[in-house]
Amino acid sequence: MINKKELEYDVIILGGGPAGFSAGIYSARGSLKTAILDINMTGGQPSNYLEIENYPGFSLIGGYELMEKFEQHADKFGVEKFPMVEIEKINLSCDKKEIETNDCIFKSKIVILATGAQPKKLNIKGEEEYKGRGVSYCAVCDGAFYKDKTVAVVGGGNSAVEEAIYLTKFAQKVYIIHRRDTLRADKIIQERAMNNPKIEFIFNSIPIEIQGTNSVESIIVQNTSTKQDTKIQTNGVFPYIGITPNTEMFNGQIKQNPQGFVETDENMQTSLKGVYAIGDVRNTPLRQVITAASDGAIAACSAVRYLDSIPAVTV
Amino acid sequence: MINKKELEYDVIILGGGPAGFSAGIYSARGSLKTAILDINMTGGQPSNYLEIENYPGFSLIGGYELMEKFEQHADKFGVEKFPMVEIEKINLSCDKKEIETNDCIFKSKIVILATGAQPKKLNIKGEEEYKGRGVSYCAVCDGAFYKDKTVAVVGGGNSAVEEAIYLTKFAQKVYIIHRRDTLRADKIIQERAMNNPKIEFIFNSIPIEIQGTNSVESIIVQNTSTKQDTKIQTNGVFPYIGITPNTEMFNGQIKQNPQGFVETDENMQTSLKGVYAIGDVRNTPLRQVITAASDGAIAACSAVRYLDSIPAVTV
Repeated sequence: MINKKELEYDVIILGGGPAGFSAGIYSARGSLKTAILDINMTGGQPSNYLEIENYPGFSLIGGYELMEKFEQHADKFGVEKFPMVEIEKINLSCDKKEIETNDCIFKSKIVILATGAQPKKLNIKGEEEYKGRGVSYCAVCDGAFYKDKTVAVVGGGNSAVEEAIYLTKFAQKVYIIHRRDTLRADKIIQERAMNNPKIEFIFNSIPIEIQGTNSVESIIVQNTSTKQDTKIQTNGVFPYIGITPNTEMFNGQIKQNPQGFVETDENMQTSLKGVYAIGDVRNTPLRQVITAASDGAIAACSAVRYLDSIPAVTV
Repeated sequence: MINKKELEYDVIILGGGPAGFSAGIYSARGSLKTAILDINMTGGQPSNYLEIENYPGFSLIGGYELMEKFEQHADKFGVEKFPMVEIEKINLSCDKKEIETNDCIFKSKIVILATGAQPKKLNIKGEEEYKGRGVSYCAVCDGAFYKDKTVAVVGGGNSAVEEAIYLTKFAQKVYIIHRRDTLRADKIIQERAMNNPKIEFIFNSIPIEIQGTNSVESIIVQNTSTKQDTKIQTNGVFPYIGITPNTEMFNGQIKQNPQGFVETDENMQTSLKGVYAIGDVRNTPLRQVITAASDGAIAACSAVRYLDSIPAVTV
């Protein structure tokens, strides 16, 4: 058995997206020894966005470029980064929390969960195969690739319908495929979609297969009443059926809402002392770079106060 | 009597600081006709800050420069700005809210309160002169600029003592100047301060003058019993004697906490339908540019949903 290297920090942040980096900036600038761990490369979801035009202060910036600025900002204050870690075990319940990777044991009194969330998959044939070649979960990222083409959005909630409207800026035709005969989206959003001549609704239908050759060429939908299959020609498929928080590494250790998002108070404090949750992974009213960054600042300041309030322990 | 010009908007934002501009960016980008009114020049409190190094994405930027970027960002989406307005009356209780200035009546279904707050001043000689050059009202913002220096905190409540403890992470010495012989802060916080070797208490003393050349060099305090003056060498003065929300224009119309800050839910919704409060004026856990900007985004998205949810009214 190999002895794993032990590394001790004041604050360990899980996830190097906008929430995590902002927490890192505030924590390290507040003189706390801070590490950011990420199971992927750092940068989080926005790194994949072509353009971001609603992070106040940057009227138009590439997602990757904005995340580089966050990262450099964190570097300035000495945040230590561990990208591509393989996490084996997380223990959040003790006073001194432990995160065990394949070669290290990270210890700290504070853990900030900034692991993000990801779009729900359709789990149908062709979805994985054509991901990035016609299947996309981000209209803002990929819409521009569908100029004068046909796309299909799957879902009936606000985000599905809003993204469908957004996609009409590029595509010549946008299908909205929905399993029921009415949309869940707010009425005004529905009306806006109904009045958009580029949008066609396919109700009472579920997607069962995505087909193509090099890229997506069609989607097969099944009518939920008649069970009849229909092949719809399309160049793109945008599933918008929900979002799942990335909590599998610590599920059950803290209070989560029915959808699995981590519950916090306004100080980003979770149900466990010394554990905070920020950004997309928490039960938040809005998932944006600006809100994630704000969460990070609040959590780090809460952590500073918490560490000041507990008596020093001899290790 | 002059007939005042009537101007109608979807969203009126009171206050052109980081919260207000962020709300404007999100509101106008969401296709809502948006106006920002300010009784001063726009830019809010940060405009007076020499340097800001904790707005994620900008590792060091002048406060004025950052607020210019916010303003240009809002301009891009067509936010209309009305600086230096003289507000005579605000009525938030109707469905259609009204804000009457000396020459216009602004009407809208949504009002977002972003009027900010201001720290209580010592009102002593040198305080205005050295503001931003040694006089600071925000330890989280400016503490890091005082590495290995000496600072003096004025006040004896929880925030004064907590911020003094926070400042010991940076400064080599922190004075707490308090007018009484005991602190008002909670006992546990007092004890923490008493046990901190970097903190020295100056009781029964009131500050009477801040002195310096280019920046703060000393503070003169007067003993309340002996009336004797003492000059204390210090590089920074942090008055922590309270903070007052700018609510005089609408006091009594919405629910406020005992200190006067506007109460909101997590969607920034106040006790009145269609009225939101963001940034420093609300009862928030942290007052920073990043948190204010996040509040603005959340309020604007809440406003979009609210407007979508009410039936269109023929005006």
